[in-house]
Amino acid sequence: MSRLLAAALALALAPLAAAADEGMWTYDNFPSARVEQALGVKITPAWLAHLQASTARLAGGCSASFVSSRGLVLTNHHCARGCIEQLSSAGKDLLKGGFLARADGDELRCPAVEVNQLLSITDVTDAVKKATAGLSGKAYADAQRAEVARLEQACQKDASLRCDVVSLYRGGRHALHAYRRYQDVRLVWAPEQAAAHFGGDPDNFSFPRFSLDAAFLRVYDGGKPVVLADWLRWSAAGTKEGAPVFVAGNPGSTSRQLTVAQLEYLRDVVLPERLLQLAESRGLLTEYQRRGAEQARHSTALLYAVENSYKALVGRRDALVDRAFFRSLADAEARLRAEIAADPALAAEALPAYDTIAAAVERQRALRWREQYVAGTAAFGSTHFDLARTLVRGAEERAKPNGERLREFQEAGLPALTQRLFSPAPIYPELETFKLTHALVKLRERLGADDPFVKKVLGAASPGELAERLVKGTALADVMVRRSLWEGGPDAVAASTDTMIQLARLVDGDARAVRREVEEGIEPSLKQGGEAIARARFALHGTSVYPDATFSPRVSYGRVRGWTEGGRTVAPYTTLGGAFERATGRDPFALPASWLAGKGKLDLATPFDLCTDNDIIGGNSGSPLVDARGEVVGLVFDGNLASLAGDYGFDERVNRAVAVDSRAILELLGKLYAGDRLVKELKTGR
Amino acid sequence: MSRLLAAALALALAPLAAAADEGMWTYDNFPSARVEQALGVKITPAWLAHLQASTARLAGGCSASFVSSRGLVLTNHHCARGCIEQLSSAGKDLLKGGFLARADGDELRCPAVEVNQLLSITDVTDAVKKATAGLSGKAYADAQRAEVARLEQACQKDASLRCDVVSLYRGGRHALHAYRRYQDVRLVWAPEQAAAHFGGDPDNFSFPRFSLDAAFLRVYDGGKPVVLADWLRWSAAGTKEGAPVFVAGNPGSTSRQLTVAQLEYLRDVVLPERLLQLAESRGLLTEYQRRGAEQARHSTALLYAVENSYKALVGRRDALVDRAFFRSLADAEARLRAEIAADPALAAEALPAYDTIAAAVERQRALRWREQYVAGTAAFGSTHFDLARTLVRGAEERAKPNGERLREFQEAGLPALTQRLFSPAPIYPELETFKLTHALVKLRERLGADDPFVKKVLGAASPGELAERLVKGTALADVMVRRSLWEGGPDAVAASTDTMIQLARLVDGDARAVRREVEEGIEPSLKQGGEAIARARFALHGTSVYPDATFSPRVSYGRVRGWTEGGRTVAPYTTLGGAFERATGRDPFALPASWLAGKGKLDLATPFDLCTDNDIIGGNSGSPLVDARGEVVGLVFDGNLASLAGDYGFDERVNRAVAVDSRAILELLGKLYAGDRLVKELKTGR
Repeated sequence: MSRLLAAALALALAPLAAAADEGMWTYDNFPSARVEQALGVKITPAWLAHLQASTARLAGGCSASFVSSRGLVLTNHHCARGCIEQLSSAGKDLLKGGFLARADGDELRCPAVEVNQLLSITDVTDAVKKATAGLSGKAYADAQRAEVARLEQACQKDASLRCDVVSLYRGGRHALHAYRRYQDVRLVWAPEQAAAHFGGDPDNFSFPRFSLDAAFLRVYDGGKPVVLADWLRWSAAGTKEGAPVFVAGNPGSTSRQLTVAQLEYLRDVVLPERLLQLAESRGLLTEYQRRGAEQARHSTALLYAVENSYKALVGRRDALVDRAFFRSLADAEARLRAEIAADPALAAEALPAYDTIAAAVERQRALRWREQYVAGTAAFGSTHFDLARTLVRGAEERAKPNGERLREFQEAGLPALTQRLFSPAPIYPELETFKLTHALVKLRERLGADDPFVKKVLGAASPGELAERLVKGTALADVMVRRSLWEGGPDAVAASTDTMIQLARLVDGDARAVRREVEEGIEPSLKQGGEAIARARFALHGTSVYPDATFSPRVSYGRVRGWTEGGRTVAPYTTLGGAFERATGRDPFALPASWLAGKGKLDLATPFDLCTDNDIIGGNSGSPLVDARGEVVGLVFDGNLASLAGDYGFDERVNRAVAVDSRAILELLGKLYAGDRLVKELKTGR
Repeated sequence: MSRLLAAALALALAPLAAAADEGMWTYDNFPSARVEQALGVKITPAWLAHLQASTARLAGGCSASFVSSRGLVLTNHHCARGCIEQLSSAGKDLLKGGFLARADGDELRCPAVEVNQLLSITDVTDAVKKATAGLSGKAYADAQRAEVARLEQACQKDASLRCDVVSLYRGGRHALHAYRRYQDVRLVWAPEQAAAHFGGDPDNFSFPRFSLDAAFLRVYDGGKPVVLADWLRWSAAGTKEGAPVFVAGNPGSTSRQLTVAQLEYLRDVVLPERLLQLAESRGLLTEYQRRGAEQARHSTALLYAVENSYKALVGRRDALVDRAFFRSLADAEARLRAEIAADPALAAEALPAYDTIAAAVERQRALRWREQYVAGTAAFGSTHFDLARTLVRGAEERAKPNGERLREFQEAGLPALTQRLFSPAPIYPELETFKLTHALVKLRERLGADDPFVKKVLGAASPGELAERLVKGTALADVMVRRSLWEGGPDAVAASTDTMIQLARLVDGDARAVRREVEEGIEPSLKQGGEAIARARFALHGTSVYPDATFSPRVSYGRVRGWTEGGRTVAPYTTLGGAFERATGRDPFALPASWLAGKGKLDLATPFDLCTDNDIIGGNSGSPLVDARGEVVGLVFDGNLASLAGDYGFDERVNRAVAVDSRAILELLGKLYAGDRLVKELKTGR
């Protein structure tokens, strides 16, 4: 990684001067002219509209596409993993054994999956600007929240719509996204974990790869598969090296527009500290898995998530501590500042913003442990506590006018929130106790044993003892109990003797105070500073730039393409035969029994995984890879190691997206997984 | 921590311009005049000679002192922890229950403790310089190794002597240290872990403290307690706030003379990566402890060591990522470089050294994973493998002339090496498998599953599978097997079918190659660069500076002193009564039963722990704290959080050493631990 980055300096990695095949573009600002020049392909508005209507996001943090008129959804196995695990039980481990519905009626409803299909993008920058003009601090935060809530509520006419105001270009633009919301989502097919995650953590973020990281879901409406006008055709022909390809998905977050002060904070504080937590969790979970087969089954998804984040953040930190790479980012900022300084009007507004942001970062730094362990979503890291906090706060927040509520309790968010709140997914007490114990240990470690908040929470108890008592004394695993507390409102919550509700009540004042400090004392400075710089950037470069990723729909363009690294050339395709060659028979390099038994039936020359130079990032998992005709030629599931630096800058020479080839999915579905029904649907669209 | 450091900038923390009560001074360059000026105390050569003769180091990495004419040794409980654990068994957990020998005959021999008492320091700078004059790279490394071996062997007339050539001032001086070596060391008294480690990890590196981190050992010779002329008297009167105090110990390592390039490498690469390993190990071990009571007992010392290192390195990293603090270090280097540049002769020699070092650091960076996972002492992290590597290499190395051997196989080191090699300390197969599994996972993770070395080691096996096979197939837990392989030499090692010997043979060529690259390709540049800068510094400042710590005897001076931090003033003493107030009854804040039962007998106003502004660092654990009369007034066992920055610079306003008060030890020994025999010995010296 270091070597790659250092070698890449000549290209200067200017974060926004979209060179080469760079960029995660919004549908309403797609650089068609540039694409035609780069790839020789004419992208029409109709082509884009069809792609937009045929793709979706999973509200939990992934991308997906519709691949039949009957609501069939293609995404990654790792995006459906939570559902697959929740549908499993002691005798029926769908992660391990895989799943295939042989008829519509066999499809299993996922307890907590929401699919969002983008309907429209409306620019609401003026409205938001007007509402916050001349304000700062708390007044700014309040006004922005109220205006966003108003816009979202006005848009969201019923529960089948989901409306989000997205802040683009670090606040330089605001866009109202209206989505069709599907909450009845069912599992259609998933291969065995051993095939989906072949190579496991060692192979994660690398290429060549041999993973069948694919699954099919289906969206239902009124108990029946939805009928869609727009969906993507499946390419049986696939691609060749050099073919133009497009990724349509929802990249989660990038940091290409952050200031150097923010990047230093990420490099020195946020990333290393988050990594230390992940490393410790990884150790704990690895050993927890040995407690027994059931404990292993319950904690597999969590361990996977921890290992995935760990490896991703290691790569990002490696990028930022590469001194040459970091210098290239600092140089880019210096160039922009020089351009701004050359224009007195821009300078007066935008140059002080750098200091505003740096000062806010210092306040972030000072508050970070409390933000994380008292106020954050990971505080008291347990499912029970999350439910309890939602119930305690929900009772209080729902009594307020919509515009004054905490963001997640505003009307626009309630359907997604209640889906999670009332999800019948199992909760495992032993795992809960384990997670809560660890969270309490870290709370004490970070704030200190003598901190008044720590004393208030722990009293004389040890973390393990308290966690056990809390988990034993809660009935929140029962959906009916949660429903009655939600519907009972403030009185029901106040009267509850449930231990986890009691904890949530005990800490809520402190947690809200910290959150207020963040939302009113720090975020407005970051946002206003970011906006001022974004405005200057627009004035200088217009919309020839793309915004940082925000988990909203984007399209990136590129080609099927390997790369050369330290003299070694990596070809862009692997084959099914390669998987058999790589297999050792031992996890994570053990192919499932179905593969070993069915090997003879397969065309081993079938392309399996491929890599492309599309610009992607976490959140793009599950994105379709489409060709110039808009047909599905692959399914993005990963990037290579160099792609991890992509959070901060795109280097087209080495940054690669990694996908499953459409041909491999067809071949395996038909010949190994008895998926004839699915193959037919992919081929005919019905 | 950040706040403390940022506030401290006015003092500028110049690494070597020993201001205030700063410095870890060698006995042959003690700043008596400065001490008299600072503390009003006259330190005579005789006083120093007596202190030197009365103190010692534990070869494993701690400090200690003689406190009676009969070889009674005072050190920390945590320094004797390895021995205490090794002397325990399933039915007799001495860590948990403590230990008291009621007569000489009851004292238990520690399997692997070596005590070294410094006899003399001889400056051998000229000899070493002469041997390496004009050489570089491999030739330089070979010549220096040969000369050091020659000097050590000439000094070491019999096995009761231990001679080490220590490189001071980053190679600016070389000093031959001759020690009396004691290998028959017995456990006399240890309190319960709950008292010794009260407050556990949460309180580690903090103050106020309430820990009885003390133990007594005794050195024997010919089966009898040794008779000593020099030993330290025990102070029953103790100290008062502001009293001058001295710490005589063996600080392990500091980095105050490193260049900025080296510090950046520590900050960005070494410390974060080491921390990630420790965090993961901590998670694994925390959960491993739940496997069962015996597994917990076997792994407690390891978990303690991991948590201690983790917290220490977090503090060090925090110091280096404090931008103001790091800038102060960079400024100090800039000042020195300016001084050097002003003198053409110095400039010609010393300025290029900065670039030489920076280039060597880049090579270190590139090689670091192989150094660590293939060549390092932690590679294949298991006791069995360490033994196997020692046996395999020992056979090869001992056949060579002394000056050509790897350093640890030179004659001077063999007594310590064979003590460890033939230690009867138990080895726990389950813990071995656990450690080895984890080491193999990390090996594969860091070098990649396709690395030829990884493939050679793992073959098709999973890490866990291979570890289990290797541990099952080795007989090296049997001391007699090790003896016969050691004595059998190359033929016996070559013929062995022991799995762990086979692994050590398999990897030794690769490991030696990496080590050679480090010792011949990198270290000579670092040493020669460091020497050049050190010579320039001497030319400018003489020996008014102290060398970086090197785990050799040093004295620091200071006062009993609290500190003020963010408006809060911390008093320098705690009391026994405070421990009862802090106790919650839950680990790690649970006092042992002996304390609860005996509380009524104690004078609760007795000072318990104290803090001083002496300049100490890891390795100083177990150092006596003596007053101006040279009497033991305390036992250093820790530093506060700000002391962790002491690796890079000393801030006398906040950096504090933490010690057990001599009065508390007397009070507790006599009234709680039935240690009348010991109390008498401390009072009379016999």
